[in-house]
Amino acid sequence: MRRAIVSTKEGVSHPIDDLALVDAMKATDKVLWLDVTGPDAADTRLFLEGFGFHPLSIEDLRQTHSTAKLDEYEDYVFQVVMVPFLIGTDDIDLFEVEIFYTKGTLVTVHDRPWKPLDDLWASVCRDPARELGLGAQRLYHNVVDRAVDGYFPILDLIDERVEGLEAEVFEATSRASVLPKLFRLRRSVRHLVRAARNQRESVQRLAVGTVRSLRRETCYQFRDVHDHLILLHDSLEDHRETLGGLRDTYLGVIGNRTNEVMKSLTVFSAILLPLAFVTGLWGMNVPVPFASNAVGFWLVLGICGTISFLMLRMMGHRGWLRRIR
Amino acid sequence: MRRAIVSTKEGVSHPIDDLALVDAMKATDKVLWLDVTGPDAADTRLFLEGFGFHPLSIEDLRQTHSTAKLDEYEDYVFQVVMVPFLIGTDDIDLFEVEIFYTKGTLVTVHDRPWKPLDDLWASVCRDPARELGLGAQRLYHNVVDRAVDGYFPILDLIDERVEGLEAEVFEATSRASVLPKLFRLRRSVRHLVRAARNQRESVQRLAVGTVRSLRRETCYQFRDVHDHLILLHDSLEDHRETLGGLRDTYLGVIGNRTNEVMKSLTVFSAILLPLAFVTGLWGMNVPVPFASNAVGFWLVLGICGTISFLMLRMMGHRGWLRRIR
Amino acid sequence: MRRAIVSTKEGVSHPIDDLALVDAMKATDKVLWLDVTGPDAADTRLFLEGFGFHPLSIEDLRQTHSTAKLDEYEDYVFQVVMVPFLIGTDDIDLFEVEIFYTKGTLVTVHDRPWKPLDDLWASVCRDPARELGLGAQRLYHNVVDRAVDGYFPILDLIDERVEGLEAEVFEATSRASVLPKLFRLRRSVRHLVRAARNQRESVQRLAVGTVRSLRRETCYQFRDVHDHLILLHDSLEDHRETLGGLRDTYLGVIGNRTNEVMKSLTVFSAILLPLAFVTGLWGMNVPVPFASNAVGFWLVLGICGTISFLMLRMMGHRGWLRRIR
Amino acid sequence: MRRAIVSTKEGVSHPIDDLALVDAMKATDKVLWLDVTGPDAADTRLFLEGFGFHPLSIEDLRQTHSTAKLDEYEDYVFQVVMVPFLIGTDDIDLFEVEIFYTKGTLVTVHDRPWKPLDDLWASVCRDPARELGLGAQRLYHNVVDRAVDGYFPILDLIDERVEGLEAEVFEATSRASVLPKLFRLRRSVRHLVRAARNQRESVQRLAVGTVRSLRRETCYQFRDVHDHLILLHDSLEDHRETLGGLRDTYLGVIGNRTNEVMKSLTVFSAILLPLAFVTGLWGMNVPVPFASNAVGFWLVLGICGTISFLMLRMMGHRGWLRRIR
Amino acid sequence: MRRAIVSTKEGVSHPIDDLALVDAMKATDKVLWLDVTGPDAADTRLFLEGFGFHPLSIEDLRQTHSTAKLDEYEDYVFQVVMVPFLIGTDDIDLFEVEIFYTKGTLVTVHDRPWKPLDDLWASVCRDPARELGLGAQRLYHNVVDRAVDGYFPILDLIDERVEGLEAEVFEATSRASVLPKLFRLRRSVRHLVRAARNQRESVQRLAVGTVRSLRRETCYQFRDVHDHLILLHDSLEDHRETLGGLRDTYLGVIGNRTNEVMKSLTVFSAILLPLAFVTGLWGMNVPVPFASNAVGFWLVLGICGTISFLMLRMMGHRGWLRRIR
Repeated sequence: MRRAIVSTKEGVSHPIDDLALVDAMKATDKVLWLDVTGPDAADTRLFLEGFGFHPLSIEDLRQTHSTAKLDEYEDYVFQVVMVPFLIGTDDIDLFEVEIFYTKGTLVTVHDRPWKPLDDLWASVCRDPARELGLGAQRLYHNVVDRAVDGYFPILDLIDERVEGLEAEVFEATSRASVLPKLFRLRRSVRHLVRAARNQRESVQRLAVGTVRSLRRETCYQFRDVHDHLILLHDSLEDHRETLGGLRDTYLGVIGNRTNEVMKSLTVFSAILLPLAFVTGLWGMNVPVPFASNAVGFWLVLGICGTISFLMLRMMGHRGWLRRIR
Repeated sequence: MRRAIVSTKEGVSHPIDDLALVDAMKATDKVLWLDVTGPDAADTRLFLEGFGFHPLSIEDLRQTHSTAKLDEYEDYVFQVVMVPFLIGTDDIDLFEVEIFYTKGTLVTVHDRPWKPLDDLWASVCRDPARELGLGAQRLYHNVVDRAVDGYFPILDLIDERVEGLEAEVFEATSRASVLPKLFRLRRSVRHLVRAARNQRESVQRLAVGTVRSLRRETCYQFRDVHDHLILLHDSLEDHRETLGGLRDTYLGVIGNRTNEVMKSLTVFSAILLPLAFVTGLWGMNVPVPFASNAVGFWLVLGICGTISFLMLRMMGHRGWLRRIR
Repeated sequence: MRRAIVSTKEGVSHPIDDLALVDAMKATDKVLWLDVTGPDAADTRLFLEGFGFHPLSIEDLRQTHSTAKLDEYEDYVFQVVMVPFLIGTDDIDLFEVEIFYTKGTLVTVHDRPWKPLDDLWASVCRDPARELGLGAQRLYHNVVDRAVDGYFPILDLIDERVEGLEAEVFEATSRASVLPKLFRLRRSVRHLVRAARNQRESVQRLAVGTVRSLRRETCYQFRDVHDHLILLHDSLEDHRETLGGLRDTYLGVIGNRTNEVMKSLTVFSAILLPLAFVTGLWGMNVPVPFASNAVGFWLVLGICGTISFLMLRMMGHRGWLRRIR
Repeated sequence: MRRAIVSTKEGVSHPIDDLALVDAMKATDKVLWLDVTGPDAADTRLFLEGFGFHPLSIEDLRQTHSTAKLDEYEDYVFQVVMVPFLIGTDDIDLFEVEIFYTKGTLVTVHDRPWKPLDDLWASVCRDPARELGLGAQRLYHNVVDRAVDGYFPILDLIDERVEGLEAEVFEATSRASVLPKLFRLRRSVRHLVRAARNQRESVQRLAVGTVRSLRRETCYQFRDVHDHLILLHDSLEDHRETLGGLRDTYLGVIGNRTNEVMKSLTVFSAILLPLAFVTGLWGMNVPVPFASNAVGFWLVLGICGTISFLMLRMMGHRGWLRRIR
Repeated sequence: MRRAIVSTKEGVSHPIDDLALVDAMKATDKVLWLDVTGPDAADTRLFLEGFGFHPLSIEDLRQTHSTAKLDEYEDYVFQVVMVPFLIGTDDIDLFEVEIFYTKGTLVTVHDRPWKPLDDLWASVCRDPARELGLGAQRLYHNVVDRAVDGYFPILDLIDERVEGLEAEVFEATSRASVLPKLFRLRRSVRHLVRAARNQRESVQRLAVGTVRSLRRETCYQFRDVHDHLILLHDSLEDHRETLGGLRDTYLGVIGNRTNEVMKSLTVFSAILLPLAFVTGLWGMNVPVPFASNAVGFWLVLGICGTISFLMLRMMGHRGWLRRIR
């Protein structure tokens, strides 16, 4: 699905067919934005033959598992940004937005509808003068900025998850095993770290001005995006490390907790064993004390009680009854 | 809240309204320091329209979670430094101080009151000739220097905490679990490491002279701040590593301590089991030795005592009674 | 085994003997591709004396354990690419493809037959105009590209294996030890990481244009290969890290699982011990309660049942009967 | 405490007061060495006003916790080297030696007496012609060289300690816990690593000639010191890693050793339990075999012995009696 | 012990005394190789005064614990290469070979006899024309190449050892503790890694042509040596990592194996405890069932057998009897 907006001195129009688009693109002193969702063969042909983009960039549109990158060609810049999204409430995946920028023209391509881009589109259509007045570079920055902003709600979600897992590990409130959740989250975080890192490198090149054809003002804008990406990357790295530490801690905590239960049970056994010995003594087929004493049974029970009491005191004294943390 | 001081050949004044401030800023041969706590819309307008700062820097004033950085614009330098502070007695957080430096003018902006800056302000007001006589660059260095000095009491606190945790881990004097404390402290340290690292990179650029418009003398001053940041960063990294090691050690120590208790109890059980066997033997409904011996009971008790003694000796010999460390 | 194809303005031919090959190679305005499987002494002599390749490159043809690399000589480029293949269904190994590229000429050498190269050969022979029309550089890129593509099925296989191992670790469905499999897979992944890293460095040099004599268009092509290698390397690094984490997790999970079984058994013992104590009491040779009660046996059994019930309730209350995860 | 030696064409003298020292320093064609232990206000004034050193360097003299560094000023070089020393027989600390080098003049400042420097002083006083004949640069190198040489006895000590700890961990000959020793030593090593690293960077700059005013010959000398620092740094890094590994190993070894004891005890219990069952059988109040057999007691004992023997054989066969390492 | 060979247009000679050697070295258009085993004072003097080598290089000859390095002096190159050798069949140590290269002259110095150098010597003496005809640079490369080749048999040995240790860890075929062996091997590997890394850096400088006075052809030769060093370094790093993983795995495997034995014993105990309870019931001094039944003994035994059977089935069903891996 294609949509386009072009703003020239004569006014604003919405070309759709190839011819009109190519004309718009070749014109000087205009701002053209073409947005394609789910590009088909016709779109591909337009890019290749009409706009003169390199076959390699076109091929990247078709591939589904790509990485964030920035390729400079003689007369245009091709950038792939990775945008995170949620599958259900839990799994995080990334989809690609491809951006072609050339003087006065911005082309965005993506396979899935992307809400922030639709919002931008609406705002551009509402007030083309203001939004396109600053040129295609500003639009370019705007798209990349929104892609990066898309990471922050996901980051908040991860913050929450990590905290939740920490609580589960320390307080053991959960009944289900924490490990698969940890591994799944860690994998998501690793993917995001990688995407953020690659993106950071791309945007840095935009920010420091190695990409010719960008105005200094635009570089300043990208420097701001770059700062966000640094913050993002560092936070994600932190989470990655925390999750690694949590995994080891979880295994240790579980082990220690089971051990603790076993210790309690062993304490219990240790208290009963001497009593069994005492009853064994009185069960021997030799003349035993109190053999014909009417309350002999209760006397032996009293001996047992005394032994238990002394043992508990001794163990308490040694700190064996206390939970070891 | 705004406060300003400007020192010219004519004398010292304290302009407050926009017009006076813009005039003071545009004058040559002066030193102007404007300090804003909790900037409002009017301050923002002054910066944007009066002083001509870039909208991006102004936006950074509004954002609350930023990172330390240094941005050079055509005619001014914009630096964000992160200053640590305590929440209660335990939690460490960071707040931002934004600094605009341009020839003869320094603007500092922060959301919270900051004691060291108030001290500097007082000293500047007390003796403007001495404090402003060395120019706005010296003032700039002074502010950054105080921001970095703010880390060292926090570092001492962390030193203390780490030592305390080490003692808790090795001596197990504590009844509450050490792990959540470890994780919390480690997170604080990681945040500080990150802030120190970013700050170090900013200050290095100030120190080596890549920022034009700084005098060589000022670079020397920043080189000194840079040395402090290196020391700070290295110490924090050390703590981070120590805390990681402590976590593993803690889990190991706890596990071994529980095991040790269980071993003692198992030793105890192992001594009682043969005795139970002996009493079992004499409880059998077959003709047993000493069956009609008046002191049979005590004879069997003696056998039991001998067995216990021999077992204890044997175990002691094998080192099983000793605590394994 | 040698095969060659040369395309000139006059047409396409398949020279085989040394003289014809050297003539073809010396000609201008041609594209020559010579492919040698299992080079013998005669081939070596041709390379050295006929084509004038450096003895060092020739020596590399003979060595079997080499690394991916790119050596530039005065008038040609010598590249070694490592191609992965499966031994049986499990073990992954790498073999080398050596490539000599010089203006208009491409020489490929390998010890094993390599399917993707045969496919390329077939397609070149079918339509020499199209495949060779773009020059030897395009052919060069094509060979390197296929070598890199060869990693992706292997990567998929590793994906699958890692997932399988994760399931085995978490669900413990397997009866054989997981560790040797983990170590074996990790070693394979490490070898591939290393190969991918070295290859990435070689291809980067081809992509950024440090290798003279490559057209800009060819550099673009290699930039694409470079992107694949980055993706490949990052994915492999991820797997390496996951496998390292899985090893630690596995050891912890096994330990905890055994502990869990022991805990259950200890719970069981702890419930039986008091019952043994009760029967011991009634076995004493003193006047016991219900001694002549006809249902005394069943009364004591009732006492035992009551004790068991109370203990189970108490333990359940403390959470000891629940499986600790 | 101040001491100085100056060698000119006229001869050797020992100026002490400020005037004479400043004169000596301003003279050309001389070699002056001023050594100050525990600098006081007068010394500070001399450096600042007499010698014209920068206030920042002077401030560094006062600070006690600094890092190794090398600062170049317009007309002199200021270096801080960290020299290790032992506190008691165990703890390692570092003190600073500050060095000012300018053409023909070397100033060394330190808070503690330092033996190697006293030796150098003695040798310079004994034969000024030889020791000062090669210029102040040679003296400069000599001081730095001795500072680095001071690390090697400490390194030997650490070697010894690490080996001792390894023996304690593997053979468990110690009764006190190894962990606090490990942590203490590791912290010392980390401090030394950091000092060595910073020093290496300083000396590298001296070695590669980025510091103007050093003769090529002096650079060669510093290259040699640099080699020592590389060796030192690498060895310390090795120790750091070994100590980290030892910590994990220690915890594991202790855990396994306790487990091993518990296993032995459990084997013992497992052998006694069937015997208790047998005696229980014969204790039942039902007609039992051998009930009136005179040697029934011994027959049952024989049954018990047989059971024990068979169990031991079975366990031995399964490898349960062997110590698991 | 000295030996030398010099090849000039006039022919080949073997000068030994200082005068002849210095003359040979000063001549142009010659190739001189001087090899010294265990240099004494006379050799040192020759190097210093006759050949004019720098005192610092001479000092390095005397030191025994040096690192691989490459120092350029005005008119010669001084390289130290580390050659590994076995002590007994197990321990790996390194010795140094010092190489002085200057136009037309190569001097090699070593403290131990070194077989590959003797072989080279023999081959040079056998056919001086061929071996020296390519100049002293070729000889230089030849010596360094042989030093690097000396690592590969050692690498094979380490391969074998690591595999052996892996088998011991997984199969537990060994009776002696694996840990000290692991630590020893790991230390050797670390030393080799370090030597390989330093060597790689030296040789890289020779390969990329930063060392003036080397012909391009010689650079190609060293590039080849550099490739070997990369392969060597990567393989050693792999081993280092594997050994680190093996250490952790070993500790975990041992712990789990001991636990497994304890689990089996606990299963056994859990089966016997109910039986003890049953016999206890029938041992009570109350009217018990089958009290006067002639086969009461066997009836109770039957009850015990049934209980055991049911418990085993239940445990088998829960997977407790299976070995947990």
